[in-house]
Amino acid sequence: MTYDIGFLGYGFMGKAHASALDRLQMFFPDAPTTNRDVLIGRNEDSVTEAADQLGFDRVATDWRTAVTDVDIFCNLGPNHIHAEPVITALESDVHVLCEKPLASDIGTAIEMRDAARRSNAIAATSFNYRYLPAVQLMKQLIEEGALGDIYRVKGRYNQDWLVDPETPWNWRCEKDIAGSGTVGDVGSHTIDLAQWIVGDIESIVGSLTTHITERSAPDQDGSRAVTTDDEYLALVKFENGAEGVFEGSRVATGRKADNSIEIYGSDGAISFSLRRLNELRYKSTNDRAYQQLLVTEPDDPYMDAWWPSGHIIGWEHSFIHQYYEFLNSIATATHHRPDFEDGVAVQRVVDAVIISSETGKWVDI
Amino acid sequence: MTYDIGFLGYGFMGKAHASALDRLQMFFPDAPTTNRDVLIGRNEDSVTEAADQLGFDRVATDWRTAVTDVDIFCNLGPNHIHAEPVITALESDVHVLCEKPLASDIGTAIEMRDAARRSNAIAATSFNYRYLPAVQLMKQLIEEGALGDIYRVKGRYNQDWLVDPETPWNWRCEKDIAGSGTVGDVGSHTIDLAQWIVGDIESIVGSLTTHITERSAPDQDGSRAVTTDDEYLALVKFENGAEGVFEGSRVATGRKADNSIEIYGSDGAISFSLRRLNELRYKSTNDRAYQQLLVTEPDDPYMDAWWPSGHIIGWEHSFIHQYYEFLNSIATATHHRPDFEDGVAVQRVVDAVIISSETGKWVDI
Amino acid sequence: MTYDIGFLGYGFMGKAHASALDRLQMFFPDAPTTNRDVLIGRNEDSVTEAADQLGFDRVATDWRTAVTDVDIFCNLGPNHIHAEPVITALESDVHVLCEKPLASDIGTAIEMRDAARRSNAIAATSFNYRYLPAVQLMKQLIEEGALGDIYRVKGRYNQDWLVDPETPWNWRCEKDIAGSGTVGDVGSHTIDLAQWIVGDIESIVGSLTTHITERSAPDQDGSRAVTTDDEYLALVKFENGAEGVFEGSRVATGRKADNSIEIYGSDGAISFSLRRLNELRYKSTNDRAYQQLLVTEPDDPYMDAWWPSGHIIGWEHSFIHQYYEFLNSIATATHHRPDFEDGVAVQRVVDAVIISSETGKWVDI
Amino acid sequence: MTYDIGFLGYGFMGKAHASALDRLQMFFPDAPTTNRDVLIGRNEDSVTEAADQLGFDRVATDWRTAVTDVDIFCNLGPNHIHAEPVITALESDVHVLCEKPLASDIGTAIEMRDAARRSNAIAATSFNYRYLPAVQLMKQLIEEGALGDIYRVKGRYNQDWLVDPETPWNWRCEKDIAGSGTVGDVGSHTIDLAQWIVGDIESIVGSLTTHITERSAPDQDGSRAVTTDDEYLALVKFENGAEGVFEGSRVATGRKADNSIEIYGSDGAISFSLRRLNELRYKSTNDRAYQQLLVTEPDDPYMDAWWPSGHIIGWEHSFIHQYYEFLNSIATATHHRPDFEDGVAVQRVVDAVIISSETGKWVDI
Repeated sequence: MTYDIGFLGYGFMGKAHASALDRLQMFFPDAPTTNRDVLIGRNEDSVTEAADQLGFDRVATDWRTAVTDVDIFCNLGPNHIHAEPVITALESDVHVLCEKPLASDIGTAIEMRDAARRSNAIAATSFNYRYLPAVQLMKQLIEEGALGDIYRVKGRYNQDWLVDPETPWNWRCEKDIAGSGTVGDVGSHTIDLAQWIVGDIESIVGSLTTHITERSAPDQDGSRAVTTDDEYLALVKFENGAEGVFEGSRVATGRKADNSIEIYGSDGAISFSLRRLNELRYKSTNDRAYQQLLVTEPDDPYMDAWWPSGHIIGWEHSFIHQYYEFLNSIATATHHRPDFEDGVAVQRVVDAVIISSETGKWVDI
Repeated sequence: MTYDIGFLGYGFMGKAHASALDRLQMFFPDAPTTNRDVLIGRNEDSVTEAADQLGFDRVATDWRTAVTDVDIFCNLGPNHIHAEPVITALESDVHVLCEKPLASDIGTAIEMRDAARRSNAIAATSFNYRYLPAVQLMKQLIEEGALGDIYRVKGRYNQDWLVDPETPWNWRCEKDIAGSGTVGDVGSHTIDLAQWIVGDIESIVGSLTTHITERSAPDQDGSRAVTTDDEYLALVKFENGAEGVFEGSRVATGRKADNSIEIYGSDGAISFSLRRLNELRYKSTNDRAYQQLLVTEPDDPYMDAWWPSGHIIGWEHSFIHQYYEFLNSIATATHHRPDFEDGVAVQRVVDAVIISSETGKWVDI
Repeated sequence: MTYDIGFLGYGFMGKAHASALDRLQMFFPDAPTTNRDVLIGRNEDSVTEAADQLGFDRVATDWRTAVTDVDIFCNLGPNHIHAEPVITALESDVHVLCEKPLASDIGTAIEMRDAARRSNAIAATSFNYRYLPAVQLMKQLIEEGALGDIYRVKGRYNQDWLVDPETPWNWRCEKDIAGSGTVGDVGSHTIDLAQWIVGDIESIVGSLTTHITERSAPDQDGSRAVTTDDEYLALVKFENGAEGVFEGSRVATGRKADNSIEIYGSDGAISFSLRRLNELRYKSTNDRAYQQLLVTEPDDPYMDAWWPSGHIIGWEHSFIHQYYEFLNSIATATHHRPDFEDGVAVQRVVDAVIISSETGKWVDI
Repeated sequence: MTYDIGFLGYGFMGKAHASALDRLQMFFPDAPTTNRDVLIGRNEDSVTEAADQLGFDRVATDWRTAVTDVDIFCNLGPNHIHAEPVITALESDVHVLCEKPLASDIGTAIEMRDAARRSNAIAATSFNYRYLPAVQLMKQLIEEGALGDIYRVKGRYNQDWLVDPETPWNWRCEKDIAGSGTVGDVGSHTIDLAQWIVGDIESIVGSLTTHITERSAPDQDGSRAVTTDDEYLALVKFENGAEGVFEGSRVATGRKADNSIEIYGSDGAISFSLRRLNELRYKSTNDRAYQQLLVTEPDDPYMDAWWPSGHIIGWEHSFIHQYYEFLNSIATATHHRPDFEDGVAVQRVVDAVIISSETGKWVDI
């Protein structure tokens, strides 16, 4: 069977997902086959041009019929238009892959999760970083006990695309649209990785900051207030006794997609950074020092599908591996993770950081 | 117009090239379009399975008719079967892309180059590393004079896939098939990068070594002699007064595709390493220290086609950029580099290292 | 004039301080001269042997007379024996250099500070890391505005000497003696560096953890409870609007004296790590990327006293530079920083972290 | 017994040696004691001032009587004034430590070596880098077989103090005084480390270059020719079958005292760099990847004399360890290495590089 797929969204994420589907069979010949059937967008001209580039058979400007008319629906649009199309699709038992974060607020995320529970379809949240080989290996090592009890987790996702005060206002600066700034946008990746690898978070205390509070907005009489955070910081306590610190920024000079995680335990330590995503630093207490693993060996997760040792892969490959697992789950009717429960779990923590920043107190999850 | 393409070879390189063609339009919509028409191989079952995976319309077990029956012929097979199909194609004015090194010896490479001179078609050698964004930026900076006069060049391509003496014999260990060991195989990449970026080599002194001289060969009564080098070293003098050192190895423990180049000049220095292929280290004499450039900005070569800053790309992307340029050359009937002259130029240097290793003297190119 | 100096303490710190005094004149010929007059300790045999090794003229087993009988008194003993001898010395207008943290609790630290205010002598706290050339350069750059407004500060001091649960109990595990664990011991360095470079801390929320709660104690019927933290984490807000995160650990596998600070601002970023204490990473928003500065140039702070470029110095050199400044302050009767106000300021923050860890709330300083 | 010591030379090296002697007893209490007796120099005012700073009892402007009037004579002057005072001292059975390279040419070096053979005194060459803890550990690991058979050695010592063409002429630019440029000056360190760790060199081919051939010389009517090399490169073959490449430069932008060595063998690889002289990178074939060793543990060579783990030492410490061994050899009348045979062995290789650069051929040692 070939699965017909529909996408809502054709920006940066649309391209990453379409490219992943396009490449899947050549590298994973046993993957279920798909057909890029319909690309959904409001502007007919734009969506038609994008459909041509991304390899879709047809376009739709009304999502309502389109999302029930496919086998799989992928929502890659902005956060505030995730819920309605996704719920509609799930109600028709159409499988769903939704970009993170699930929604702009926890209430909406729960509605989506409930729709997923009621549906016979598979509902997945796209936390693609889980599917990088080095991150998979990190998870494996920890599951095998390589770190013993986890003591400390450090997660960050720093960027600098707003450090220049002359950079104009955009929708991510507006709380009513985006929900929050860094904490929801990039913080959700950190939170998901940490919970997936280490376990559930019990409580959190955090702080949101907006250093640059106004930006030029040519279409808004000159300037407009920034109502989302451009930095967040949080301390976390996990249920298993580990503690941690998370940070995110859009004003961290010189940092570009600096998505990193560092974990210390009783028997070892391990760290990962997106800038060098084919590498891990790992130390067992049996080793004298850290080893700098190059995760490009045939035995490493997913790497037998790619190139000989040392020929590194890129960021985009995470989506290919994610689709491989997602489609296999559909084909074999087995549960897929990260699901909407995972999406809600992340959103609860995002929400708690925002509340904590207002109350100045630790918030239980 | 859509160009029909034929491939000879469907191993590691076949996959890299097929994937590049497959992806080209989505990321470079203005690229000429191609059709993967025919895949050539001797074993009908294997080639049929590969054609299916790599997206070819049909297969051929006899290259003679196949290579003249397409618009573009890509020879991705072992070195000793490069010449005849390539020359046949060029004689029919079929465009050719041939993997490096052009041939197992300089005489054959010159025959191929002469065929290219006589042909109306475009003949390209696949030195794909030229097409990595960081390498392109390195070339640009040097052309703009960022390094001033070049003083010293250090190039290496180290691997360790033969460091284990238990690793069995394979065809790359046999001089009659492979021509040479490291110097032709990985050395050709170093030589091409150095000549492309710095200029022509004038003379060279080198040394080939074989540390492990016998390997198990189950099909050969137990073991077989290794007749190619597992390491080479060379000192080089360039026509413009620069000097350099090249090295290659298959027994350098812990090194995997360690393709690196480091260049010092009167006004600056710059270095690149494949392991972190999205990065450059660069110092101008005006700067106090080295900068670690992350070459993922939209202004960087080819990067506007890809992802936002900091989302790194992989080794395979070099082939996409190479096909973009090669196909554009065909479509616009303009000369393409690296051509067969470049292929011969590399082969001359490879040859000189082999001669020098025997005579113990500097060899003029 | 040659200053007679007395030391209380002859362990690791005693050696670092004695060596610094010993070397001062050869490298800073204009420094005031000193005489290592008296070494104070309770055990006459041990202190006599140490005095011989460290170059003291005589020993004393009673600090009371000794500390008033010198020009300068350096208290390098454990925290709980700082106060009384220091106050006694100051009351006799003997100059004092006291190791950090000033005391085991804030009340005692304030008593010491008050004694310093009443005294005509100079009272200094030994925050020696301020006197590393790279840290001095960091401070200079920030004072000159190289980072603009400070946005974020990350400080850490991680170690792993207690990660092995078999490591026996020692006095640093006992709250009644040590005051606290990591937060007072290594955290005080982080806090001082951050406040010195960035400015005063306004409020803090933190968490102390003890992962290994019992350790073997052969002299205590087998084992003994650990009553101090082996890790701390804190979020901080500075008066100038910067935010930060601090961490310290004795159970961070693979980290040895990992004293690092990283600062981001509107116009640049800079970081330092003790492991590579001759280096800084610095990025101006005018530069494309981080520069890796090697702080061994003759123009760098204190470096004209040492070796040619690239010949690195070590941890111990910080004490030499500190004594150079401390003695010059005495000789010229000018105020010296870090003084006891700085020592109290650090202690207040240490105290606030401990309180916050108990109350779960942000604490104003 | 306390040994009276005389120094010839009180520049950069004089200070490094004097400081080492000054510090020895505090950190190595069992070391033989010494007295800095006489400092030798031609200019009475300068030498008197230096003697005061470096802690010598008296000065001498005529070396002839001074060098026989002490127990130990250290020649730290320029290369061309090494031989005569050293031979004179040895003829009186005065122990000698001579800075490297032994002489400006091989003939003179052999005369010195012959004098050492005839003498009852101990004659040592100051190859201080052997005495860094990380280098000692490297040597130990290799002696224990950690690398198996050595395949390849890469040694370099790059600097950039002559990269600016405006830097004026100095005596190191004149062949008649200095003997050679980089190859004798910094190359001698590389050659000694390589031969000490790997074994004797059998043959070598090399090239000397002078990129900047004239420099300003205010006292010489404006400018003066540069007659020494500012870069050298060499390929080497060791008697045990290993091969290698050496390089040195004074025009390698951004490199300061970049003294590095990297060794690959059948069972592992290891590398060291002076910039991070407390570290080693080491990989056994049993490990997946390189470990980054921090060589500051109490078990590491000489480190129990210094500070707790992670508190790094500097370049100058190599001299302290060297004197510890040299003085112990004297006190126990046991042979010391590196001796003058080692000094001659280095000089032979320096000489061979110079000859090879002229003849264009491999030169047997």
